[in-house]
Amino acid sequence: MLRITLPGDGRPGGSALRADFLAAEEPLGIRAGGTALTMTMRTPGDDLELAAGFLVSEAVIRSPDDIAEIKLCDGTACGHAGHDGMGNIADVTLAEGVELAPGARRNFMTTSACGVCGKASIEDICVLPHAALAADTARFAPEMLAGLPERLRDAQRVFSRTGGLHAAGVFTAGGELIAIREDVGRHNAVDKVVGWALLDGRLPLTGCALLVSGRASFELVQKAVLAGIPLLAAVSAPSSLAADLAEEAGLTLVGFLRGPSMNVYTGAHRLPA
Amino acid sequence: MLRITLPGDGRPGGSALRADFLAAEEPLGIRAGGTALTMTMRTPGDDLELAAGFLVSEAVIRSPDDIAEIKLCDGTACGHAGHDGMGNIADVTLAEGVELAPGARRNFMTTSACGVCGKASIEDICVLPHAALAADTARFAPEMLAGLPERLRDAQRVFSRTGGLHAAGVFTAGGELIAIREDVGRHNAVDKVVGWALLDGRLPLTGCALLVSGRASFELVQKAVLAGIPLLAAVSAPSSLAADLAEEAGLTLVGFLRGPSMNVYTGAHRLPA
Repeated sequence: MLRITLPGDGRPGGSALRADFLAAEEPLGIRAGGTALTMTMRTPGDDLELAAGFLVSEAVIRSPDDIAEIKLCDGTACGHAGHDGMGNIADVTLAEGVELAPGARRNFMTTSACGVCGKASIEDICVLPHAALAADTARFAPEMLAGLPERLRDAQRVFSRTGGLHAAGVFTAGGELIAIREDVGRHNAVDKVVGWALLDGRLPLTGCALLVSGRASFELVQKAVLAGIPLLAAVSAPSSLAADLAEEAGLTLVGFLRGPSMNVYTGAHRLPA
Repeated sequence: MLRITLPGDGRPGGSALRADFLAAEEPLGIRAGGTALTMTMRTPGDDLELAAGFLVSEAVIRSPDDIAEIKLCDGTACGHAGHDGMGNIADVTLAEGVELAPGARRNFMTTSACGVCGKASIEDICVLPHAALAADTARFAPEMLAGLPERLRDAQRVFSRTGGLHAAGVFTAGGELIAIREDVGRHNAVDKVVGWALLDGRLPLTGCALLVSGRASFELVQKAVLAGIPLLAAVSAPSSLAADLAEEAGLTLVGFLRGPSMNVYTGAHRLPA
């Protein structure tokens, strides 16, 4: 890697060849019930959690009992192997009676005849357990929330070396960090923490806050809701559809959580004054 | 929206209800040749460019002549309409003789029996016109590149209001901005500029630089290569697979382009000392 620095402010410029650590990115195929569901470009590691969390986010499973077996293809069967010798396929055998629901978003995305038409069809895009989330009585002090971004950054072991990874962290209402995962994709980082929670028997994540680096999209709100998380905070902005869905689902949505200030878009009752 | 500011440094804290502009995010379904190819969450606007650029990025089309017709579903046929009364479906009729190639990544993603297995299968994931890119003799002065991020930000009309949009800009080797598009998704912003170039008869974008906000993923490198762009610059880090593909394809990949410094990961010969 060639590092170029232009001269300026009395400093001389220059260029130098340097070693560099880049965040690894490789494709992961996710299969469930014998069907190839998706391919995602992800940072290798925590792959089974990623696959499990993806299935939660797609409303395919809700409990570890819904999984009969979850494994990585070892790469020898198909003749290809990833960098570490493992295949880049996560294969999930669903428990008896667990089906790929016809309402799963994947099917909607690929088979709907009329397609997807914005706000009016939010309820068609995802089936959400609204009632459970609205009933979550957890409260989150703004002073506690203000400290979370720095704690997330401190916990990102890889970030300082690569500068290229998103992070998702799950915190208790008291501010205790209980899980953090990183990935080149923000949605993958969230799937990884949700998959961890599923496999650890902690779903739904009642009373918890989820913090993500970057912005809050519709997809991230959906993932938080399906994991039963009552508060989603993002360092950057939410989208309009993210706020719409959060409002409808009873999720508290915090954006621009930076230092001492934050914007509360929905569910402000969970932040006591 | 409730804005909370905590007290500190002698300043009093407080909270206030404020209006806020959020970046719009709505699903767009993309159909080609009668087949539903994908659904993407995007910022409405430039939807036909987005659909056209997506098809370029998937190696389905390479020229405006490959498209017989491209239109938005008007929402009345299917009974659903987006916020603006238009349907959120872009429908592309391919010109006679243009097929959804069996090597298109979409098919690979959803039908491959053995899946995707990392570095070894880069050539399986995408079919790239390597030779053309390696022959691009354009040169880009580091001083010119250093000024691009600020110019991209200046040109982002929406950013200052929402703070939530990614941007992609196409510049000439002399530093002239010839196209900019924004989106909640970085990949969509790139598809929009590529689609603009296609529909405007400017592909391949020989001699041009593409600047993206945020990081450089494998997918963005692939999009740049398929659009014939010899230099991709990102404000943040590339992934390892992005650098691998750039090296293989003969693309110049610049990362951490911030102020006077930048990292050149591949193709440094295009930046004269």
